[in-house]
Amino acid sequence: MEVKLISSTQNSLVKRILQLKEKSRERKKSGLFIVEGQREIALALKGGYTMQSLLFCPEILNNPSIDTLTKGACPEIIEISENVYAKIAHRGTTEGVIALMSVKDHALQNITFTNNTPLVLVAEAPEKPGNIGALLRTADAAAVDAVLIANPKSDLYGPNIIRSSVGCLFTNQIGMGTTDEIITFLQTNQIKIYCAALTASKNYVDCDFTGASALVMGTEATGLTDTWLQNSDQNIIIPMQGEIDSMNVSVSAAILIFEAKRQRGF
Amino acid sequence: MEVKLISSTQNSLVKRILQLKEKSRERKKSGLFIVEGQREIALALKGGYTMQSLLFCPEILNNPSIDTLTKGACPEIIEISENVYAKIAHRGTTEGVIALMSVKDHALQNITFTNNTPLVLVAEAPEKPGNIGALLRTADAAAVDAVLIANPKSDLYGPNIIRSSVGCLFTNQIGMGTTDEIITFLQTNQIKIYCAALTASKNYVDCDFTGASALVMGTEATGLTDTWLQNSDQNIIIPMQGEIDSMNVSVSAAILIFEAKRQRGF
Repeated sequence: MEVKLISSTQNSLVKRILQLKEKSRERKKSGLFIVEGQREIALALKGGYTMQSLLFCPEILNNPSIDTLTKGACPEIIEISENVYAKIAHRGTTEGVIALMSVKDHALQNITFTNNTPLVLVAEAPEKPGNIGALLRTADAAAVDAVLIANPKSDLYGPNIIRSSVGCLFTNQIGMGTTDEIITFLQTNQIKIYCAALTASKNYVDCDFTGASALVMGTEATGLTDTWLQNSDQNIIIPMQGEIDSMNVSVSAAILIFEAKRQRGF
Repeated sequence: MEVKLISSTQNSLVKRILQLKEKSRERKKSGLFIVEGQREIALALKGGYTMQSLLFCPEILNNPSIDTLTKGACPEIIEISENVYAKIAHRGTTEGVIALMSVKDHALQNITFTNNTPLVLVAEAPEKPGNIGALLRTADAAAVDAVLIANPKSDLYGPNIIRSSVGCLFTNQIGMGTTDEIITFLQTNQIKIYCAALTASKNYVDCDFTGASALVMGTEATGLTDTWLQNSDQNIIIPMQGEIDSMNVSVSAAILIFEAKRQRGF
């Protein structure tokens, strides 16, 4: 394959990449996003994402060959100079490699389950990229069957979510939809809905999560909407005994998910 | 009490406050730190911290009276103008009130337990303020008996830790010392040491945390030092089944702490 060379920060592709990193509107319009780092790119390929272009800076990229990185599945490979790399790289220290990839379709009808008792994490309207990344990281560690995002407030493919998820954006099966759509989806699939709520009285450890279960988390600020609380099979609470009656949403999710894992014998 | 007025950002106390916020060296030298926000100040007072000065901006502070905030226990109350407040306030939107308080002595000999089976969280060399804040928040929610920080890398009283802990810096009993000192402290107090380690083979759910227990967490990057792993009663692992073999340290800590809480019947 012919390898192009870009050494000007004024190059149109360089400008395009910066737009895709900074503007979710551009990502939505084009269906493309930017991934940095060898591990992240490898996880995205393994997760079934398709690569459009791979840009590498030979002065920084050391060990792996480009073929290893692309797995032979990249239509365009571009060598970039150090100044171009510095212009487009999100982090201070990465590995000299950046990929342009196609986003996935996260429609609920694409979600598939490989067992009869799936464990599903649902987050309603999560806002902070760091929280979404942490949720995806925990979901990966627990190998939950799907992560569903209800009424999403932000585009999944921004650099902060990719970074804070340490690539777990690509390792989870992710579905998106409105709260109503997701409730219908769960009910249709006979998955029990457990909503975390500070107003609930049922201790989460007294629930049986060994059947098909969805653990539903709201935002730290306002919790879940009434639609969730009224359509749940059980509203549950993590008992808190301190001065502050709130925990980080990713921390709460992890406590619930790993209680389900414990009950299921991992 | 006479209320002073400061309206110049060049005032020496204003400069002093900025130094105390920005430089841990200044905090260490003086034993003073800065707290912003009504809830944080109330939690600090409730936690036994002493206030040296309270600064308030009448244009921003609305409901509570100064007496309510200080509980009558502040030697110096200072009115500040909006421009001075804007200069020293850490957050975009706070409640117009900032306090100068004395740090606590976190020596291990000050730690006291009110029961025979304390649950203790230990973090070795935690680095990121956000992680320390999240650990303190979870520790508060679980009402652990003490949080011990081994080989601390950062000053507890920086604005980022106070903020990310949402005031739980003040609600926990916190001890600090070297790893050796804390191990000796735990052994002397007959508290079993459980070290979280990716190299361990014992599943955390197979341990009995109902006795006096310390849950010990390392950093995400390098885990615990050998000193901990070799002096533990049991090295434990949270089984992970995803592509990524790491979780956020505050997430891991929460999973372990709440498993202990479950075993103890909350």
